[in-house]
Amino acid sequence: MALPLLSERDLAFMLYELFDAEELGERTRYADHNRESFDAAINTARRIAEKYFLPFRQKVDTHQPAFDGERVHSIPEIKRALDAVIDAGLVSPTADYDAGGMQLPAIVATVANAWLWAAGSTTLGYIALTNANANLIAAHGSAAQVEKWVLPQRAGRFAGTMAMTEPGAGSGLGDLATTAVKQADGSYKVTGNKIFISGGDHELNENIVHLVLARVKGAPQGVKGISLFIVPKVLVNDDGSLGDRNDVALAGLFHKMGGRGQTSTSLNFGENGGATGYLVGEENKGLFYMFHMMNEARIMVGTSAATTALTGYQYSLDYARERPQGRLPSSKDPLSAPVNIIEHADIKRMLLAQKSYSEGAYTLCLLGTQLADDEKSAATQEERDYAHLLLDFLTPMIKTWPSEYGPKANSYAIQVMGGHGYINEHPVEMFYRDNRLNPIHEGTTGIQSLDLLSRKVPMNNLAGYKAILGEFEKTIAIAKSQAELSVYAEELQRAIEVLKSTTEILLAAMVEKNIDLALSNSVKYLELFGNVVVAWLWLKQGIVAVLALKETPHDADQKFYRGKLQALKYSFEAKFTITFPCFFKSLFSWLVILLSQK
Amino acid sequence: MALPLLSERDLAFMLYELFDAEELGERTRYADHNRESFDAAINTARRIAEKYFLPFRQKVDTHQPAFDGERVHSIPEIKRALDAVIDAGLVSPTADYDAGGMQLPAIVATVANAWLWAAGSTTLGYIALTNANANLIAAHGSAAQVEKWVLPQRAGRFAGTMAMTEPGAGSGLGDLATTAVKQADGSYKVTGNKIFISGGDHELNENIVHLVLARVKGAPQGVKGISLFIVPKVLVNDDGSLGDRNDVALAGLFHKMGGRGQTSTSLNFGENGGATGYLVGEENKGLFYMFHMMNEARIMVGTSAATTALTGYQYSLDYARERPQGRLPSSKDPLSAPVNIIEHADIKRMLLAQKSYSEGAYTLCLLGTQLADDEKSAATQEERDYAHLLLDFLTPMIKTWPSEYGPKANSYAIQVMGGHGYINEHPVEMFYRDNRLNPIHEGTTGIQSLDLLSRKVPMNNLAGYKAILGEFEKTIAIAKSQAELSVYAEELQRAIEVLKSTTEILLAAMVEKNIDLALSNSVKYLELFGNVVVAWLWLKQGIVAVLALKETPHDADQKFYRGKLQALKYSFEAKFTITFPCFFKSLFSWLVILLSQK
Repeated sequence: MALPLLSERDLAFMLYELFDAEELGERTRYADHNRESFDAAINTARRIAEKYFLPFRQKVDTHQPAFDGERVHSIPEIKRALDAVIDAGLVSPTADYDAGGMQLPAIVATVANAWLWAAGSTTLGYIALTNANANLIAAHGSAAQVEKWVLPQRAGRFAGTMAMTEPGAGSGLGDLATTAVKQADGSYKVTGNKIFISGGDHELNENIVHLVLARVKGAPQGVKGISLFIVPKVLVNDDGSLGDRNDVALAGLFHKMGGRGQTSTSLNFGENGGATGYLVGEENKGLFYMFHMMNEARIMVGTSAATTALTGYQYSLDYARERPQGRLPSSKDPLSAPVNIIEHADIKRMLLAQKSYSEGAYTLCLLGTQLADDEKSAATQEERDYAHLLLDFLTPMIKTWPSEYGPKANSYAIQVMGGHGYINEHPVEMFYRDNRLNPIHEGTTGIQSLDLLSRKVPMNNLAGYKAILGEFEKTIAIAKSQAELSVYAEELQRAIEVLKSTTEILLAAMVEKNIDLALSNSVKYLELFGNVVVAWLWLKQGIVAVLALKETPHDADQKFYRGKLQALKYSFEAKFTITFPCFFKSLFSWLVILLSQK
Repeated sequence: MALPLLSERDLAFMLYELFDAEELGERTRYADHNRESFDAAINTARRIAEKYFLPFRQKVDTHQPAFDGERVHSIPEIKRALDAVIDAGLVSPTADYDAGGMQLPAIVATVANAWLWAAGSTTLGYIALTNANANLIAAHGSAAQVEKWVLPQRAGRFAGTMAMTEPGAGSGLGDLATTAVKQADGSYKVTGNKIFISGGDHELNENIVHLVLARVKGAPQGVKGISLFIVPKVLVNDDGSLGDRNDVALAGLFHKMGGRGQTSTSLNFGENGGATGYLVGEENKGLFYMFHMMNEARIMVGTSAATTALTGYQYSLDYARERPQGRLPSSKDPLSAPVNIIEHADIKRMLLAQKSYSEGAYTLCLLGTQLADDEKSAATQEERDYAHLLLDFLTPMIKTWPSEYGPKANSYAIQVMGGHGYINEHPVEMFYRDNRLNPIHEGTTGIQSLDLLSRKVPMNNLAGYKAILGEFEKTIAIAKSQAELSVYAEELQRAIEVLKSTTEILLAAMVEKNIDLALSNSVKYLELFGNVVVAWLWLKQGIVAVLALKETPHDADQKFYRGKLQALKYSFEAKFTITFPCFFKSLFSWLVILLSQK
C-alpha cells in the first residue's frame, strides 16, 4: 500500500480556486512570485516530506526523546530531515529576503508546510516554534537583538521556544513566579522553573533561544507585571560566536501520550545564580509581546490539527479502497467475493465525516493565513486593517475548531480500519494521540472561549463580530442564486439568527448580570460560532464547486466537485445544524451544579 | 494526592437503591447470600484492587508484554495480582458452587469487578475472557469437556481465549479460512492463522484453552459452515495432567495504542501438521455456540468501557478539587488566592458530562447484569424468558453506548487536567487510549448497529422492541407523578415518539426498498436508541433520587441525590436531546456519496 499523505488536488482547489492565491503575485511584496514559484516551493516541501520525514514518521513515536541526565537523545533521522528543510530555505519562507526568507505568501507556505507536517508529524514543531520566536523578536526586539537572535534562527543555526507555563501557572499566567533582576550592564538575571516547554532542549541546533515570561523584582502582581526576556541556552558573543553555557538546565522530559516528534521539557532557570536574560521592549509589557508569538502559535496549532485530520482521512480512505471485508446486506451469496470496505455505507459515512471535519478545518486555517497575508500586503491601509480585525477575531476559532474536530476525524480513521487502526503498524492511532494535545496547548479550548466571548466579540464596539457577519451575508447572497445551494444558504441564515440572538443574550448578561454566569457558556458559544464559520466556509467551497461543475468537461474534476458538494451536504445535514436548536437550553445552567457524590 | 478509583457511594446507590440487589438474596440460587455477603465480596475485590493492581496500573502500559521469539514476558506484578484474584475465588464468582464458583449474582460480581478493572485496567481481560470461555464450554460442551477444560479455568489453573479473527476475516467472519480435519480418534487437526487474539499467549497460567472457529473440510461456505473447537496450548492427559505442547505457535504480539494490560497475539495453528482440537457440540453450529461467549464478551466490553469512564471521572474530579489555577471572571484582584479549578464553570461542565456519560453507561451495564441474573434465577419461566428477551435486545447497546461515550468521558478527564492530563504521570491519558479499543473489538459499532436494526428489532415480531418500549412507559408514568421530573418524563416521551417513527420508517424501508439503503443509517439508529435507553435510565435514577431526597435528613446524602438530579438535567438538556430533532435529515443520504477527490 502506498502512503497517501494529502490530496494534491484538494490543496490546489483550496489554494487557487477557493482562495485565489495567484492574485497575490500581483502585490508588490510578492512581485517575484507566480503560480509556478508557489508550486515549486510546495513541491520542494513535498519532496523533502516524502524523502526525509515519511520514512521515520512512526519511529519518532516509538523512539521518543530520552534524557540521560546530561543530554537529550533523539533519533538521528530528525536532524537530517530538519537540515533538509533548512537547506531548502523552508524554515522562514515568509520572511523578508534580507532576513533570509523567500517572501512567500503565508497561505502558500502553509500549504507547503502541510506536506512536512503530514509526513513529519509533530517533529515540525521545532521549526514552527523557531519561526514564531524569530517573528516576535523581529517585531518587538531591538535592531541588535534582531541581528543576534533572529538571523541565526532564520538561517536554521538556532532554534526558538516559548517559555510561559510554570508548575503553578498554566492557564492562570498572572500567577507566574519566575523572577528577573536587572544587572548593571542592562541584562537581567532570570530565576524560575518552566514546564511543558516544547523543544526546550535538544541537540538539533547550535543554540536555543528561549523567550521567557518573568516578573521583574518589584513589578505589579498579575498580568500587568510580566516582562519578556530572551534567555539563550548558550550565551552569544558580540561577534555572533557562541560563548559559555547560560544558567539554564534541563530538569527532565515529559512523557506525552503523543506529539513525541518534539521534546516537552521542564527547565530550571538560574539554579546557579541566575540565567542571563535580555529584556524585549519595555518592562511589564511582556504579555502583550508574547501574544505576537502566541497568536501565531495558536494558528499553528489549528493548522497542525487540521493537517493531521487531513492525512488521517487520506490514509483511511486509501485503506478502505483496498481492504476487502464482508458483503453488502443485500448479498446473500457466501461464494461471492468480499467487497472493499469503502462499499459499506457506514464506512462511507465515517470517511465523509472525516472529509467534512478535516477539509472544513483546513479551509478555516487557510482563511487565517490569507488574512495574515492581507494584513501585511493588501493594497490599502483599510484592507490591511480589515484583515487584521478579522484575523484577530477568528483566532480563537482557528485554534479551536480544528483542535476539537481533528481528533474526532482521527477517531473515525481508526474506526474505518477496525483493529488495524488501533495498532502501530499504521499511523492513524498516532494521529489520534498527537491530535489530542491540540485542544490543550497554547491556550485550552476554555481559554479560547473566554477570549472570544469576553474580549473578541465586544472589542471595538463589536467591530470584528460585525465584520464576520458581513462576510457571511456576502456568501449567502451568492449561494442563494445557485439552485443547488439555496437550501444551505437558508439554513446558514437560520443558524446565523440563532448565533445573533445568542450573542445578544450573552452580551446583555455580561453587562447586567453575574459575569461568571454569563461566561459559563463560553465553550458552547465558541462551538456554536465555530460551527457557523466552518459551515460558511463549506458553503463557499460549494459555490466554487457548483460554478466549476458547469464548466469542466473532465470526469475526474466532475467527481471531485461533486465530492465537495456531498461533504457540504453532510456538513449541514448530519453535523453542523445539530448544535443550534438545542443550544439555548443549556444557557446559564452549569453554575448550579453540585458535585458532591463521593 | 490520593488515587480515587470509584465512588463507593455511587456503586451502593446503583446496586441497592436503583437495582435493589438485596432482593436477590430471597431467590433459591442465592439463598446463602445477603447484603453482608455481597459487600464482603465487593470489599475483597476492592482490597485486592488497591493492594495488588493499583500500584502497577501504569506500569503495564509503559512495560507492555514482549515476545523474545520463544516466550512472552510480562511484568511479574501481573501474575501476583491475578493469583490474588484466583485465591479470593473471584475468577468465576457467579459460577455454581460445584464448579468452584460462589453463586454470586452477576450484578454483585460486576460491582466487585469494577474495583479490579478500575485499578488493573485491561489486565483483567485475562480473567474475564477465561470466565467467558468456561461459561461457553459449560453451556455447550460435553460433561467430559467440562471436567477437562472448565474446572481448571474456574480454579485459575488454565486461561481461556476466543479465537475468531483472521487476517482476511474480521467483521466478515463468513470468510474465515482456518480448517479442521476429523481424525480417527474423533479429534480434529486445526490449521490456520488467527490475529488480534487477546491473551493468546502468556506465562500466567499452566495452560491456555483457545476456542477456535474453523471450517471442517467440505463444510458449506459462509457462516453456516463454521464449527467451534477447543484447541489447548498444551495437550491435557485423561487424568488432567499436562501433556505435550500442541501445534499452536505464537507468531507475534501486536503493539496496541492501549489495552496493554493484556497481550494481543497472532497465532499460528497447525504449522507442523495440525493442532489437535476437540469439537464443541455439533459441526457447523460453531457460530451459534460462539455467540454464548461473544454476547458475554460484548457486555464485558461495555462494562470495561463504563468502568474506565467512571474511574477517569473520579480521578479528574479529585484533581479539580485540589488543583489551584486562575480566578473567576468576576475577580479582578491579582493578589487574591487562585481558586481550585473545580470552581471554573467549564471545568464543572466537563465533570458533569463525565458523570452523565459514565454513570449512565454503567447503569446500562448493570441493567444487563440484572437481566442476566433474572434470566437464570427469576421465579417464573415467564420472568426468565422476559429477561432473556430484553437482554438479547439490549446487548448491542450495552456493548456500544459505553464504548462510544466512555472515550468521550475520558477525553474530558484529560481536558480537565490540561497539560497534566496529557502526560503519563497521571493515568487519564491511558484510560483514553484503553477505552478507544472498545468500539472496535467484539464487533465494531457498525456490526452492533446491524445486529440491532436488522436482527434484534424485527426479531419475534418486534418482541424485544415492544418490551423495552413497555419498560420506558412504566418509568414515564412514575416520573410524571413527581413534579421535579415531569418535564424530563415528557421529553423522554417525545424522544420515544421520534424513535418509534424512525423505527417504522426503517422497518418499512427494509421490506419495501433497497435493504442496503435502509441499513445505511444503522449506526445513527443505534445511537438514537442508545441515547433513549440511557436517558430512560437517568430518569430512573432521578426517581430514586427524588424519593430519597424527601426522606433523608443527612446533608451528604442530600448533596449526593441532588448531584444525581443535576446529572439527569445535564443528560437531557445538554446531550441526549441533541440527536433527536436532527435525525431524520440524514436518513437515506449516505449511499449517494462520491469519494473520488484524490
